[in-house]
Amino acid sequence: MWLRQMVSSRNLDVVFYPRSVALIGASKEVGFYIDPISASRLREKFFLVNPRSSEISGLKCYPSILDVPEPVDYAIFAVPAKIVPEALEDCGRKGVRVAHIYSSGFSETGLEEGKMLEEEVLKIAKNYGIRVIGPNCMGVYCPESGLFFAHNLPSEVGSVAFVSQSGGQAVNFVFEGVSHGFSFSKVVSYGNALDVDFVELVDYLAEDPKTSIIGAYVEGLRKTEGLLETLKNASEKKPLVILKGGKTGDGARAAASHTGVLAGSAKIWEGFLKQVKAVSVDTFEDMADAIVGFLYAFPPKGRGVSIVTTSGGSAVIHTDLCVKVGLNVPSFSEETQGALRKIIPIAGASIRNPLDAWMAFQGGILPEALNTVSQDEYIHSLIIELQPGGFKVYTARDPSAVDKFTLILGETCKKIMNEHGKPTMIVVTKSIYSEFEAKIKNTFQNMNLPVYQSIYDAAKALSKLYQHQLSREVR
Amino acid sequence: MWLRQMVSSRNLDVVFYPRSVALIGASKEVGFYIDPISASRLREKFFLVNPRSSEISGLKCYPSILDVPEPVDYAIFAVPAKIVPEALEDCGRKGVRVAHIYSSGFSETGLEEGKMLEEEVLKIAKNYGIRVIGPNCMGVYCPESGLFFAHNLPSEVGSVAFVSQSGGQAVNFVFEGVSHGFSFSKVVSYGNALDVDFVELVDYLAEDPKTSIIGAYVEGLRKTEGLLETLKNASEKKPLVILKGGKTGDGARAAASHTGVLAGSAKIWEGFLKQVKAVSVDTFEDMADAIVGFLYAFPPKGRGVSIVTTSGGSAVIHTDLCVKVGLNVPSFSEETQGALRKIIPIAGASIRNPLDAWMAFQGGILPEALNTVSQDEYIHSLIIELQPGGFKVYTARDPSAVDKFTLILGETCKKIMNEHGKPTMIVVTKSIYSEFEAKIKNTFQNMNLPVYQSIYDAAKALSKLYQHQLSREVR
Repeated sequence: MWLRQMVSSRNLDVVFYPRSVALIGASKEVGFYIDPISASRLREKFFLVNPRSSEISGLKCYPSILDVPEPVDYAIFAVPAKIVPEALEDCGRKGVRVAHIYSSGFSETGLEEGKMLEEEVLKIAKNYGIRVIGPNCMGVYCPESGLFFAHNLPSEVGSVAFVSQSGGQAVNFVFEGVSHGFSFSKVVSYGNALDVDFVELVDYLAEDPKTSIIGAYVEGLRKTEGLLETLKNASEKKPLVILKGGKTGDGARAAASHTGVLAGSAKIWEGFLKQVKAVSVDTFEDMADAIVGFLYAFPPKGRGVSIVTTSGGSAVIHTDLCVKVGLNVPSFSEETQGALRKIIPIAGASIRNPLDAWMAFQGGILPEALNTVSQDEYIHSLIIELQPGGFKVYTARDPSAVDKFTLILGETCKKIMNEHGKPTMIVVTKSIYSEFEAKIKNTFQNMNLPVYQSIYDAAKALSKLYQHQLSREVR
Repeated sequence: MWLRQMVSSRNLDVVFYPRSVALIGASKEVGFYIDPISASRLREKFFLVNPRSSEISGLKCYPSILDVPEPVDYAIFAVPAKIVPEALEDCGRKGVRVAHIYSSGFSETGLEEGKMLEEEVLKIAKNYGIRVIGPNCMGVYCPESGLFFAHNLPSEVGSVAFVSQSGGQAVNFVFEGVSHGFSFSKVVSYGNALDVDFVELVDYLAEDPKTSIIGAYVEGLRKTEGLLETLKNASEKKPLVILKGGKTGDGARAAASHTGVLAGSAKIWEGFLKQVKAVSVDTFEDMADAIVGFLYAFPPKGRGVSIVTTSGGSAVIHTDLCVKVGLNVPSFSEETQGALRKIIPIAGASIRNPLDAWMAFQGGILPEALNTVSQDEYIHSLIIELQPGGFKVYTARDPSAVDKFTLILGETCKKIMNEHGKPTMIVVTKSIYSEFEAKIKNTFQNMNLPVYQSIYDAAKALSKLYQHQLSREVR
């Protein structure tokens, strides 16, 4: 009954919220499904199928899906490709509604045999009304319902959805989220996209109330029907961040080997992404950085950024890199400079922008300095760089100073964002003091602040956010 | 007598190999000089000067440099800017040969007062024949002689020299070297470059037999005399990797605030760097990655790279990124594909390039596959991506499998480089299994192999190495 209510509105609900799950071809080799699902809220409704074993990892094994004593909504196929059609027939008879085919050996091999096998699978699935995820994919991670596709995935529920043609990248991106301080509503690796595809998934997630941002990795599409409208609609509703793989000629060829689809030309895709107002990125790090910006900050109202750092060299290099990504680092107004001059001793400091003032970090005057900067009319966003090594030295005599400092700085950043409407990014640089670095970073992430590993990363995210904002204004 | 011999050939020897060192204005605040130097081979010849203390960190303090009972070659100034001239006069009378002025508050403030103070310092230094490093700088790190400018710097001696206008970046880059697996011959932060400047330092390092590669961070120059000839000569002798700070208008303004010099226009610099055949980079990560390539590999003979990975998504994205940086990822020859087909099972694998074959990593057939790839005529370099998480899973049943695998893979890479003349880069990606990741990375680094954090990083390095090679061919 619970399921019926869930699936009434949109037919992909059963993909993310199955009542029960079976793993066909269960073995220790796919412990990355068995271990986490058997520990999740689905544990009582998770069934292993393997005719050659009676028990795996302490769980009973059934010889066939037809022997499972309860209804099964969602079946994971981890059997050789050739066996899939037969097992799928059994699923049809059992009343299974979703077949997630983990197995590879289909069209992605480029062999005629693999393509024919896919056609056979699709025919059986259509015959029984089974939705197919894959083949050649990791499937679904939905911590809310209890679906997992790898070890050590967080059970925390967040609001980021991620759709990926690649299985490895789907798993990797969840960990990228962990290190960037965000969690997921739903992640899908859809592989060869024989049935459920990119367009349908994005369409579903656009309407999903549990999802506030959609990230997507796509190589190419079997069907482009409804693509433009779907992406347009989705990016009207929530930020849509897309990494298009196979933009170059060599890359398109690699994509064809990977998931058996033609990747299309770079120009067509770039035009598409611009037209549908998606945020286009080149790497997963950039995608995660942009998502952090959307989640914990917001688009700046202009290109002017202030860099606040303790290193003059960093200030110079990163000014160049900000300009390179389309921001600018304007001089503070005379008024701001005058106000800063009253707060910060002059020797060894630059108070024009970047604000290079280690004594401000050491002397406890940083909140006032940041407040001053945030009121400058030429400044639309701030990036504050913290070098853990420096902190470690300053706070050696009073260990509690770190906690105090991070808390005050965090509150200051929130205040600047709330009261002055200027996104304020915190950078915690890589350090040999890795534990110390992690501690500072975690404190800010737990305060739901946008944390980056370098000024360059923060600048790229701000630039993406600004472009997103511009695309919304030009209608 | 020892010193006289050292300095006879080039007059900057005393800067790097002083017989004795004094720290004027010693206090716990500059423990980053006191602690490491007092633990180095200079410890018996290291003297603290401070009229207000008799002892700091267990070391005797002298009221004035004139009270130090032995000759002093190298004095570090950590006193307020205004006191520097007077203390320098004392140094002159003492016979000090190098004054490294850590103190800031000179021309970099943009104030007339600071500029005048610098002129005064230069006059006194010239009068006594004292060479000045700085002001506003960290000075010299030379593990061979015992000079250190921060806590926790490695005492290992390497062959990389680094010259930096910025003190913070000089320190940071040493740690960047540590994480990239290389050590230093000499590092100099020269700050405002009142006397010893970029040109003179590069000129010295070009002839330094202990230095095989020179990295440099430069914002702008007070004097450009001899610049072109010096850089040309240096890059004829050894790779010269330059990060130019202040390339953009905003960046140049930031540089003026930082070290009180005009940074010059981007175009002039880019032209310069090309003309002198230097390797130009935009970030310190890229500099370290290029250095790793020169140290542990060599320039490829062409643009064709093979990507070997266990993730199809990674293969596609990184093919695009390789193309973006000027490499290409050509299909293997028919011959290579045929040979690979005999080694690698087809399902889930792509054997065209990228070589996406997790079973090759798992099944122990990787060396043979790599050897086959390295003999392909279209392939000039290889990048092998290892995902620590995958390893962890494969080797769960036999922990010694990791050591065996890394050793065999490392030997295979060396063989490919030595016998087929193709640079072979190893990528160990970021992982939640950070200890495991570090262990694998360290094993390869200890074998003196080129290790990178992403295929993109390795590709950027290969591209820089290839450009370097091309610039040598076009004379």
